[in-house]
Amino acid sequence: MLRCLSLVFIFICSAYSFAETADSSTVGPRSVILLIGDGFDDQHVTMGRNYLVGPDGTLLLDSLPIRGAVQVQTVAPEGGWSYVADSANTATSLATGVITNIGRVGTGPEDQDLETILEMAASAGYRTGAVSTSSVTDATPASFMAHVSQRVCEGPETILGGEKYGLPFEGCSLDARGAGGPGSIAEQIMASPVDVVLGGGLLYFSETLPGTATRVLDTAAAHNAQVITAAEQLRQPLPSDARLIGLFAPEHLPVRLQGENKRIAEQPNPSWLNYLDWRLGSVEQPLPMTCEPNTDYGATPSLAELTRVAIERLREGGDKGFFLIIESASIDKQSHSRNPCGSIGEIEQLEEALAVALAHAARYENTMVLVTADHAQAAQIIPEPSLFDDIPVPVYSPGHVARITLDDGSIMAINYATNSFKSEEHTGANVPLFANEAARDYVSAYMRQQDIFRAMQQFLGLEND
Amino acid sequence: MLRCLSLVFIFICSAYSFAETADSSTVGPRSVILLIGDGFDDQHVTMGRNYLVGPDGTLLLDSLPIRGAVQVQTVAPEGGWSYVADSANTATSLATGVITNIGRVGTGPEDQDLETILEMAASAGYRTGAVSTSSVTDATPASFMAHVSQRVCEGPETILGGEKYGLPFEGCSLDARGAGGPGSIAEQIMASPVDVVLGGGLLYFSETLPGTATRVLDTAAAHNAQVITAAEQLRQPLPSDARLIGLFAPEHLPVRLQGENKRIAEQPNPSWLNYLDWRLGSVEQPLPMTCEPNTDYGATPSLAELTRVAIERLREGGDKGFFLIIESASIDKQSHSRNPCGSIGEIEQLEEALAVALAHAARYENTMVLVTADHAQAAQIIPEPSLFDDIPVPVYSPGHVARITLDDGSIMAINYATNSFKSEEHTGANVPLFANEAARDYVSAYMRQQDIFRAMQQFLGLEND
Repeated sequence: MLRCLSLVFIFICSAYSFAETADSSTVGPRSVILLIGDGFDDQHVTMGRNYLVGPDGTLLLDSLPIRGAVQVQTVAPEGGWSYVADSANTATSLATGVITNIGRVGTGPEDQDLETILEMAASAGYRTGAVSTSSVTDATPASFMAHVSQRVCEGPETILGGEKYGLPFEGCSLDARGAGGPGSIAEQIMASPVDVVLGGGLLYFSETLPGTATRVLDTAAAHNAQVITAAEQLRQPLPSDARLIGLFAPEHLPVRLQGENKRIAEQPNPSWLNYLDWRLGSVEQPLPMTCEPNTDYGATPSLAELTRVAIERLREGGDKGFFLIIESASIDKQSHSRNPCGSIGEIEQLEEALAVALAHAARYENTMVLVTADHAQAAQIIPEPSLFDDIPVPVYSPGHVARITLDDGSIMAINYATNSFKSEEHTGANVPLFANEAARDYVSAYMRQQDIFRAMQQFLGLEND
Repeated sequence: MLRCLSLVFIFICSAYSFAETADSSTVGPRSVILLIGDGFDDQHVTMGRNYLVGPDGTLLLDSLPIRGAVQVQTVAPEGGWSYVADSANTATSLATGVITNIGRVGTGPEDQDLETILEMAASAGYRTGAVSTSSVTDATPASFMAHVSQRVCEGPETILGGEKYGLPFEGCSLDARGAGGPGSIAEQIMASPVDVVLGGGLLYFSETLPGTATRVLDTAAAHNAQVITAAEQLRQPLPSDARLIGLFAPEHLPVRLQGENKRIAEQPNPSWLNYLDWRLGSVEQPLPMTCEPNTDYGATPSLAELTRVAIERLREGGDKGFFLIIESASIDKQSHSRNPCGSIGEIEQLEEALAVALAHAARYENTMVLVTADHAQAAQIIPEPSLFDDIPVPVYSPGHVARITLDDGSIMAINYATNSFKSEEHTGANVPLFANEAARDYVSAYMRQQDIFRAMQQFLGLEND
């Protein structure tokens, strides 16, 4: 049912966009809308397609006229290449055109602050925005608005070091205000020229400035900003024309879908005989499951709604056009957690946000819409049953498997097996690029992430040579 | 050294192609060259790029102006969708435009024989060829030239059933000559109109026809064909103008590269304490390794050499143009065997064969060159070290890992973890398409495998409506 509603939604948006093309399109000001599916590699694209529209169906993404491959590049801490990235260094490459180290947000390998495409656009008079389903202080959106040496430095308390995921971390001593730095990511976003920031992260904006009882969000007025924290406020006239920071969850926004009864991928269960010899015994595969609405989703605004509000607000602000980065963050986070239903719901959210972006682009032809991923991820679609099902020995994944029942009764099996830990690893494949016709002269079939920065820079006339 | 030589080779071929463009290009007859990297998904493309030219380098593939994504579709034996394919059903989709079941070669889900693009081209007067590093009777090349219900029916003896990989198989009783069928794949290739067939598979052509001592290859003259079996024969004037079948190995051709001392991916070795609790103890990762020339490669002709001979022979034969399918088969086979060095060498072979194809296309502008994969495969590039290296618990793959040392001293780690068996599983991601400028009006950013059949059909004017 949820799926049907979403498809109807996409259809309405597409229809709306075509209607607008016919009746009222205009060349308009130059704008760039960059959508990032975090961890959205081709295994995830296909998983989303198979579930949401069937293998014979076409995602809205698939209807974009241009597709390319993007090589992800990472500098190892000791110099030389690393072959797998994280969301901080890749977002920094996309935002600044510079290759850097894992964990770095808007800073180069020598810790130099790098001007971002969003900052360049703002300086040149464009309006700017950042929308994410993660905390707005998380690596991807942060890399367009802030500059710290480590992604964990999200608030004025955490920048001093602390503990995350049960592990101590050092913080970013040189970036802290006490050392004369610009402060944590939340503080830098508050002081940034960015016009609209929507997502999660209230926790970090609620941390207090050093030696005071003043929370980051209490400084909004001083920075010509207003903070809203409830989805209803998005649907009402906003208090003022000041910059808008919307924080709709303490950290990341809840995801839309979950596995049946919150099940995630599980380990196949071999019989005791199989422990003695791999040719013996039998194996119990995890039982099939369906995907269902996440019971914790509540009144969370959708990525499409955040995108619509951001675009409206950026559009109202003037004739110069805008730069907007939109992230569906939890495709990746749910893949770390071995939850394919979670990832699929967030792929659906990316599709819906894209529909909103394309509706704008249909009305304002000079809008370049790019969709890409930051890095590849662990999930793999594996055969159901195994290719070796006829062989009289138990054959099963050494990792975790979810067997998802689709509408036609078929089963799509998803494997997670990059490590033995509770969070899977990213992987190193090049990632897809999807683009609309306005991008034709700016992108090519094969690019590196920093070439996407250059394409956006060129499109907006921001080259500084 | 091997790598340097290959790069020089690619450079020479590229230079040759550009020189030809400038001096002597001609619109020429319409031809299609379809290159298939078996199992060549984006993880493998990136693995090849990282090893062969570095993450900052550009494969010849990457220089092609058009890139798309291709959805792989498979019908389950009981009807409905399967989400992971094999090389037989995917090659059949590419060759005939029909979606079918795993294991089927040139036949539909109801066992109907399907006319292939190669057969249509031959009927229309085009010359035709098939080149592979596998046995020419293996699923990919076979699906363009033969029609059987099961891919194992490669020779007149095996078509009656038998044992493969230690397992009994049924054969293809309805396709056998005894049942009035066209016989095994080898017999059908012998009787096919195809002009040039080069690869491995002497074993199947040496099987005898039912109730006789006559081997398939003994029937060559009767089919206006000649069989050669030694690489030197490729370099000398051929005995006659008859159809050419070259079989340079009993089954598949040996691969070019191997891991150091024939090492493949290995299981990380956790300490005994770690078996008690995942948070305890330590783990020994497999030692890094280099790739080196395969000591069994011998005088095996390269895929580029086979491609060059095939194109020359097809070009000599007339003004009508040709259809040629070229497969680098062992990217997939080596991924099944958890041997990333093996796969990388065969990606290099694909690059070299592409250089030969592009040199022809530079001289004859009406040549559509397409490169794609048939299905995705198990290998994944994983972080080295783990993203969770700072966490004080042992973190390691539950599968098999190879840590390959590259020229700059960096390590690329490849993970294989789709099953517990001795051969990895295919995976279900959509696969890449690369195309030259001649394909511009025939391909799009998103296609299904049967759309590639239609693009080739349309380009050669073979539509039967």
